[in-house]
Amino acid sequence: MFMTKPMEIEERSMEIIAPHLAGLSLGDDEKKIYSRIIHASGDVDYASIIRIHPEAVATIKAVLLRGANIFTDVEMVRRGISIRTFTKFGGEIYCKVSDVDVREFAKREGITRSMAAMRIFGKRLQNEIVAIGNAPTALFEVLRLVREENIRPAAIIGVPVGFVGAAEAKAQLAAQDEIPYITVEGTKGGSSIAVAAVNAILYMLDNSRGLIEK
Amino acid sequence: MFMTKPMEIEERSMEIIAPHLAGLSLGDDEKKIYSRIIHASGDVDYASIIRIHPEAVATIKAVLLRGANIFTDVEMVRRGISIRTFTKFGGEIYCKVSDVDVREFAKREGITRSMAAMRIFGKRLQNEIVAIGNAPTALFEVLRLVREENIRPAAIIGVPVGFVGAAEAKAQLAAQDEIPYITVEGTKGGSSIAVAAVNAILYMLDNSRGLIEK
Repeated sequence: MFMTKPMEIEERSMEIIAPHLAGLSLGDDEKKIYSRIIHASGDVDYASIIRIHPEAVATIKAVLLRGANIFTDVEMVRRGISIRTFTKFGGEIYCKVSDVDVREFAKREGITRSMAAMRIFGKRLQNEIVAIGNAPTALFEVLRLVREENIRPAAIIGVPVGFVGAAEAKAQLAAQDEIPYITVEGTKGGSSIAVAAVNAILYMLDNSRGLIEK
Repeated sequence: MFMTKPMEIEERSMEIIAPHLAGLSLGDDEKKIYSRIIHASGDVDYASIIRIHPEAVATIKAVLLRGANIFTDVEMVRRGISIRTFTKFGGEIYCKVSDVDVREFAKREGITRSMAAMRIFGKRLQNEIVAIGNAPTALFEVLRLVREENIRPAAIIGVPVGFVGAAEAKAQLAAQDEIPYITVEGTKGGSSIAVAAVNAILYMLDNSRGLIEK
């Protein structure tokens, strides 16, 4: 017989993941982020490729508590964030990738829609949280806004995925020290990984169990 | 400079993924599913763990064309399916995991919400498509409905993720031959993987490019 009780599943899952983190020197909060990402991917290899800026968790907690908004590249990230927990803090989640103006702007400029969306967000990203799970071009654009337009998100959760630009965009994110970040080395990532990182921090604040098994 | 044009990114991504599929004997449609899953995860190791029932693609195409509905375990899967393409065929996507009646039923029975949701769907799954990206318990429940209640979905895309039951649920799916399936061996999977499989088939039918880069 298989387990059907959410709490038992959660506890057992954490027991299985724990040994894979044993060799790493992680704080409790970081462990929670690693565990949730590994659970969301079923892939213990994430233990060696996750990169968390030393101030990322404290910064994200602080801005969430004051009601920061989250800006995502794709709808799956928006939809995956635990809205029941997030709304307690007063923020909103924004995603413009499917908006008509973004679609037209992207077509006109010959760029991806998610890149166009980040450019249109522009100054609105200031002091807010950016969560990118899909498109390398969206992360490149946010890093350009930081560099060239002096826009300062509070933190960037940047885990775009794939074989064209994803590793490079994430390396660029990890190479700067100004904006706290959560990222991953290499080609892996995705919406589920971005969501896992955001929800891990939300559940720390909420003191809820934040059960993994839905 | 990085690529910003969606079509170039798509083509380059497929060029990079192709050699990883070279050793496998796959039809064109299967190649598209493999490629999209590998792209969505950034993980070429999927090439060796994806399992597609020989009739799965043809069956899913046929039922989509007659307007089949899709039943998902979590909202992320519902939200990730390309709605612009899917709605052309007339079907609806259903997910009950956040419904109040499901929450209450799950609590009363001591089971997960997604398992409760599948049990409540019950006969509605007959001849429709099931897409499970998150919860092993939801897949176990659908397989129980098949076995014990004689309910026959047209096909099951079953890629729940994690360390508690996911490998077992997927092995059970691949061990039966009655319902065509798309699945993955082991602990890996997730909403992004379920979405990649569904969208790959939708784009085959739509003859659209179905661009990977948003």
